[in-house]
Amino acid sequence: MTLRLIVEPIVRAALLEDLGRAGDITTEAVVPAEATVEAVIVARQPGVLAGLDAALLAFELLDPGLQIDRRRADGERISRGETVARIGGRAHAVLGAERTALNLLSRMSGVATATRALADAIAGYKAKIVCTRKTTPGLRVLEKEAVRLGGGANHRFGLDDAILIKDNHIALAGGVCAALERARRHAGHLVKIELEVDTLDQLAEALEAGVDAVLLDNMTPETLRHAVAMVDGRAVTEASGRITLETAPAVAATGVDLISCGWITHSAPILDLGLDIVE
Amino acid sequence: MTLRLIVEPIVRAALLEDLGRAGDITTEAVVPAEATVEAVIVARQPGVLAGLDAALLAFELLDPGLQIDRRRADGERISRGETVARIGGRAHAVLGAERTALNLLSRMSGVATATRALADAIAGYKAKIVCTRKTTPGLRVLEKEAVRLGGGANHRFGLDDAILIKDNHIALAGGVCAALERARRHAGHLVKIELEVDTLDQLAEALEAGVDAVLLDNMTPETLRHAVAMVDGRAVTEASGRITLETAPAVAATGVDLISCGWITHSAPILDLGLDIVE
Amino acid sequence: MTLRLIVEPIVRAALLEDLGRAGDITTEAVVPAEATVEAVIVARQPGVLAGLDAALLAFELLDPGLQIDRRRADGERISRGETVARIGGRAHAVLGAERTALNLLSRMSGVATATRALADAIAGYKAKIVCTRKTTPGLRVLEKEAVRLGGGANHRFGLDDAILIKDNHIALAGGVCAALERARRHAGHLVKIELEVDTLDQLAEALEAGVDAVLLDNMTPETLRHAVAMVDGRAVTEASGRITLETAPAVAATGVDLISCGWITHSAPILDLGLDIVE
Amino acid sequence: MTLRLIVEPIVRAALLEDLGRAGDITTEAVVPAEATVEAVIVARQPGVLAGLDAALLAFELLDPGLQIDRRRADGERISRGETVARIGGRAHAVLGAERTALNLLSRMSGVATATRALADAIAGYKAKIVCTRKTTPGLRVLEKEAVRLGGGANHRFGLDDAILIKDNHIALAGGVCAALERARRHAGHLVKIELEVDTLDQLAEALEAGVDAVLLDNMTPETLRHAVAMVDGRAVTEASGRITLETAPAVAATGVDLISCGWITHSAPILDLGLDIVE
Amino acid sequence: MTLRLIVEPIVRAALLEDLGRAGDITTEAVVPAEATVEAVIVARQPGVLAGLDAALLAFELLDPGLQIDRRRADGERISRGETVARIGGRAHAVLGAERTALNLLSRMSGVATATRALADAIAGYKAKIVCTRKTTPGLRVLEKEAVRLGGGANHRFGLDDAILIKDNHIALAGGVCAALERARRHAGHLVKIELEVDTLDQLAEALEAGVDAVLLDNMTPETLRHAVAMVDGRAVTEASGRITLETAPAVAATGVDLISCGWITHSAPILDLGLDIVE
Amino acid sequence: MTLRLIVEPIVRAALLEDLGRAGDITTEAVVPAEATVEAVIVARQPGVLAGLDAALLAFELLDPGLQIDRRRADGERISRGETVARIGGRAHAVLGAERTALNLLSRMSGVATATRALADAIAGYKAKIVCTRKTTPGLRVLEKEAVRLGGGANHRFGLDDAILIKDNHIALAGGVCAALERARRHAGHLVKIELEVDTLDQLAEALEAGVDAVLLDNMTPETLRHAVAMVDGRAVTEASGRITLETAPAVAATGVDLISCGWITHSAPILDLGLDIVE
Repeated sequence: MTLRLIVEPIVRAALLEDLGRAGDITTEAVVPAEATVEAVIVARQPGVLAGLDAALLAFELLDPGLQIDRRRADGERISRGETVARIGGRAHAVLGAERTALNLLSRMSGVATATRALADAIAGYKAKIVCTRKTTPGLRVLEKEAVRLGGGANHRFGLDDAILIKDNHIALAGGVCAALERARRHAGHLVKIELEVDTLDQLAEALEAGVDAVLLDNMTPETLRHAVAMVDGRAVTEASGRITLETAPAVAATGVDLISCGWITHSAPILDLGLDIVE
Repeated sequence: MTLRLIVEPIVRAALLEDLGRAGDITTEAVVPAEATVEAVIVARQPGVLAGLDAALLAFELLDPGLQIDRRRADGERISRGETVARIGGRAHAVLGAERTALNLLSRMSGVATATRALADAIAGYKAKIVCTRKTTPGLRVLEKEAVRLGGGANHRFGLDDAILIKDNHIALAGGVCAALERARRHAGHLVKIELEVDTLDQLAEALEAGVDAVLLDNMTPETLRHAVAMVDGRAVTEASGRITLETAPAVAATGVDLISCGWITHSAPILDLGLDIVE
Repeated sequence: MTLRLIVEPIVRAALLEDLGRAGDITTEAVVPAEATVEAVIVARQPGVLAGLDAALLAFELLDPGLQIDRRRADGERISRGETVARIGGRAHAVLGAERTALNLLSRMSGVATATRALADAIAGYKAKIVCTRKTTPGLRVLEKEAVRLGGGANHRFGLDDAILIKDNHIALAGGVCAALERARRHAGHLVKIELEVDTLDQLAEALEAGVDAVLLDNMTPETLRHAVAMVDGRAVTEASGRITLETAPAVAATGVDLISCGWITHSAPILDLGLDIVE
Repeated sequence: MTLRLIVEPIVRAALLEDLGRAGDITTEAVVPAEATVEAVIVARQPGVLAGLDAALLAFELLDPGLQIDRRRADGERISRGETVARIGGRAHAVLGAERTALNLLSRMSGVATATRALADAIAGYKAKIVCTRKTTPGLRVLEKEAVRLGGGANHRFGLDDAILIKDNHIALAGGVCAALERARRHAGHLVKIELEVDTLDQLAEALEAGVDAVLLDNMTPETLRHAVAMVDGRAVTEASGRITLETAPAVAATGVDLISCGWITHSAPILDLGLDIVE
Repeated sequence: MTLRLIVEPIVRAALLEDLGRAGDITTEAVVPAEATVEAVIVARQPGVLAGLDAALLAFELLDPGLQIDRRRADGERISRGETVARIGGRAHAVLGAERTALNLLSRMSGVATATRALADAIAGYKAKIVCTRKTTPGLRVLEKEAVRLGGGANHRFGLDDAILIKDNHIALAGGVCAALERARRHAGHLVKIELEVDTLDQLAEALEAGVDAVLLDNMTPETLRHAVAMVDGRAVTEASGRITLETAPAVAATGVDLISCGWITHSAPILDLGLDIVE
Repeated sequence: MTLRLIVEPIVRAALLEDLGRAGDITTEAVVPAEATVEAVIVARQPGVLAGLDAALLAFELLDPGLQIDRRRADGERISRGETVARIGGRAHAVLGAERTALNLLSRMSGVATATRALADAIAGYKAKIVCTRKTTPGLRVLEKEAVRLGGGANHRFGLDDAILIKDNHIALAGGVCAALERARRHAGHLVKIELEVDTLDQLAEALEAGVDAVLLDNMTPETLRHAVAMVDGRAVTEASGRITLETAPAVAATGVDLISCGWITHSAPILDLGLDIVE
């Protein structure tokens, strides 16, 4: 569970983005200030739940007096029609936070659901699904958590916590060996080094120079199989390049350790959840 | 074009989210500090461009000395392989801002492209596509602009700039008439009032009470046609409820003024754009 | 009541502006840390109360342990000598927040009192008092609320929530018709359009083109009367231009819907309120 | 001149308060993006200019490409109709910053003008006008500067930069002597101590105990004269208590060093300045 | 005790600096989420305690549910092995805040301990130890408090709360008299004026012109004794210039009022304190 | 060189901490506004330079018009009396930024100088000096860079970028094996795992379980030698525990890879640098 200290500023900003300067003028005008409601957050689609903490925090930030009752937990599979939480209290607060909460919840659940589908597609193989840095600006910490909740693992969080040498770096450094040599000289002892390779020749060069992980980019299953054999346990192997639900099993079958997918964060459709007033 | 004063904090936060505390340690380690590059941002899919200002601002914020040359403008259709901008200068800055810039650009272009597809699907009808408040937390101002760039129009920006009375409000206010009467009493003279109706009976009630716009939710084309006839120009008519590329033409054919779609902001896949080093 | 989420940053910044880096060094030095007091906030002038939430929040932010007892509510008329709230607890907190709280309370009550006087002056006429964007930088949300509490209504909150076409816009657009045509084409369906007119000719042009409201600027009561007759209910009519307590009744008598006044926010004297230690 | 580092966040926040999320939608809709204007800021009343830096910064922050030409300087007397600055460039930027700039400029000029009037009223006497902490929340640094520009002097900036012992402190400390003794023990060697006295007996006690300045609160001119004689140069003398333009000369004639007035910051009407398009 | 309103942002930023985006991944991975601990903060060296409020706030901000029990108070002498506080609750929160809390506590206690040693070295003389503006960027308010807790007094807090004329100012103003004359003309009535003098001639000039305090820079004890005699109570005397524990008594013996030392804030070693799990 | 995007907020906050609300009132009062100076930053002690970018940024932020000329570069050894930079322009800006710039520069140079001394002490051995998380709250990014400039290497930046299992974690996880097993299961593929061991038995257990690095805490040189032999290249070896300039060579001689020291960041005295006006 991501720390409230880290998540709260994101939720607060999201609320203010929706409330603007004047707040929820519809509810102010139309609903008596003293009205109370009981509401439930309900799944309108089956999927995997994620973002519930952030979503419920939106209600709490708007009114700490609301009664919030969690019915399901992040990471759980939910079915259509299921209630995931119940919120009771001042109608003004419930309605004012509704959209912000649902926007957070449905996006994160969408990421978790997409990840889960992909992870299920390769069940039985040793490969794990990992995310990328192709996340929504401002929401990376939540999306990385949603990936974990959906059964995936996290790649690095940003540019500063691991070395990943890509084609442009190799070109500018003057080759695989030069790049790896420079990287090893500068890397702290707790920083791992991964290198992107496009060909088996590059892979051979990388293995010779020594590397913690190799990103095997846009290779066919056949080439991947060769690559895995060449690596032979000397480095973590990661396959990438537009891998879909359909193509993932064949990739996993090659024996790679990791399959990285940008689309589980950048293009997953939301999971539809709604808020219903129950009394 | 959205104001830099408003967009800059979003881009700055996105950069810091990726750079973390230590910055781009790969490039620091591997690429000589004095290296320079020429890079192009290239479309890997056809679509509609949006977010170019924000994306290029990421480069500029990291290094004001970069030379930035725009080749295409927001709102234009771009084809696969086309260059949309060229950036030259310090390799450290170009590589450090790359992912942040592309994340912004590809998301906004994805929204614009989805909107454009929907708008094209109903070309010839008077109806316009409008977005909703189902936007990405923290990015609403950019996504609303992307919708406009894709040929759509904006609904209200937040809870504070128009009155939209939904089913929950009606229930809590004690009916359509009571809700509208309260709304009109509190609304400023520059605030419009829209009401969501689920049935033609509610619509009749709303029209009698007087309203600027009606949100016709989850109605079949037949019912919509009746509704438009009943309204007869006395209010703006907006159809909503899981309208897709496939169902949109039939909805537009009913004569409604607006078709609102959440998915163009919450579930549009990104438009794939990449950065290539050219020398 | 404005949302705490929106108001708290304003109050927090105001406290820090007064406390500086070292805090209230007088009270630290002179008053024993364990001393407690009971204090009352008392009106030293009759008027209309506004800003009580913000003022009491200053005390609460400095010490959540203070006991705060509201005696009067925002929007109520208060007489000289009346107690509006009672605060008990640590003397250091009460004295440290005193000036910030009173600065907020007396300014907002001053705005509400001025608005009330103006609204009373035109009682019996249908016209309502509305405020402008001539508010104190940083305090608009509180001043808009104070206007409502004083019996006035709010004009738009900022540049982004309605279209108000002024003389400069008309000149740059190439005339009333061109401006209105452009405005209507770009305005969202929940955005109203108001136009400032200086002459009856302009008014005729505006009515012909269609407009939601007209700002009748600096017209004599006679001209206003003609204008109201010309409009004949087709648009909301707003009179503006240095309207005072003395001139307001004559303006209201012309039949306009709204009278807008900048001075109720930008030049209203404060309402004098003080804090007294009672034991 | 107050430092840009300090003032810029105030101006930036004021702009964002007016521009909201969507910016100036009127100008966006109505005025062609490429239109340019020449505009002048003109005094509509005579007075003393203050806040010009902050006001012009609003234009610069919105568009660094604007050409800004200062015609008058802060602190100068300006007459009705005089141009104080000229701004040329993109019409969108000039119109978007107009209201924010004028709100800052007219408020600060109002404070300077009120201060100037009061200072002029006591010209010939040695007394100086000083301000109080009764300033607008968030704008103290600008208002303190406006007071200086109007010929006044500044009292302490906040609770942390000098000791001012008021009646409540005296009561809680157990008398004038105890309060002064505690204050002297805790005060740093660069912190001055002022004490509020309501009677000549308290004054005698304060002088005996030693004090840097005395605040003579709500005394008649006769009592003030006695007080000044008693002090006999041993402390700075400050008269306070609802002193107006009319009563100030009699107060100044008593020989006090300082006359403090809250109303020059909390209740001064703005100085009316406007922006005119000149071509 | 410094106000929480002022200290909380410092502690919050320090926590976020350590937790980064992903939080404490070690504890997340290794320690069960439901584990609870009892921990004590223990001195590993004798010294003077300071910063306990800030340190304990780090735990509270991470988890308001932790039970925090203070055993010793800021300003007290503590011996090796002593427990200064006990914290019980969720292991994740205790371990996540540990380093941030200790970094704050050990630094502030280091400053207090250094100050105490220096104050003790001159016990019996009237001189007091004062700090300078040579503090850690971002932590001045805490370090100034630590100096007071260690038995020292505070010099000015920043550039804005007193006038201290140094050699560069004198040179640019055209001499001691010109500088003092300008300073007195501009200083508010609650602002004191101190002047740095390097020679007895400058001191004579300063005394003639009148000054609240003199900073006697880099003088030998003999010269200081002469200077104190010349001043003869007409100004506060402050000795400065690389004064150490060893040289301080001789300086104090000259009769100066204050001895200012930069190193107690900029170069004091930390006081070693640690956190032990007790069950 | 750390990114300006990351460093600027630190420098800006440090300037505002010193300037307060009213700015540099001494220079404002005493030095003519139009005065210009040429100043040099000069080393008053020999050492290693660090923090020059941050220090010069303080001048630039206060006045972008200053002319700044770097004479030496970060990481270089400087001798007493050497000029490291020259700054020319408005005296108000030079004097207003002086203390903030020097506070940053002297602290970072102090860290670099201490690190350099320690690195030199173990020259000839393969061991490298590494820092810890015992850094100054708010300044970690600058202090980590200063360590690198002084010839040291960086340990992890915070709790989120590597796994370091300490004694408390081991106890709460139920032993070395359980802790390592949990860590490996949760760690991303680019996250390294280090484990603190206090005994050779623990070390054996850790090596058996597999680990990237071992922190050998508080061991004698003899024990360290045994440990290094046991590890035999299977993990990075790090010695820690109050290692000083005197004891470091004996530790390095044991063959460990890394020697970590908290005191180079938490207790290094500053390097004395000053600003002199040269004309």
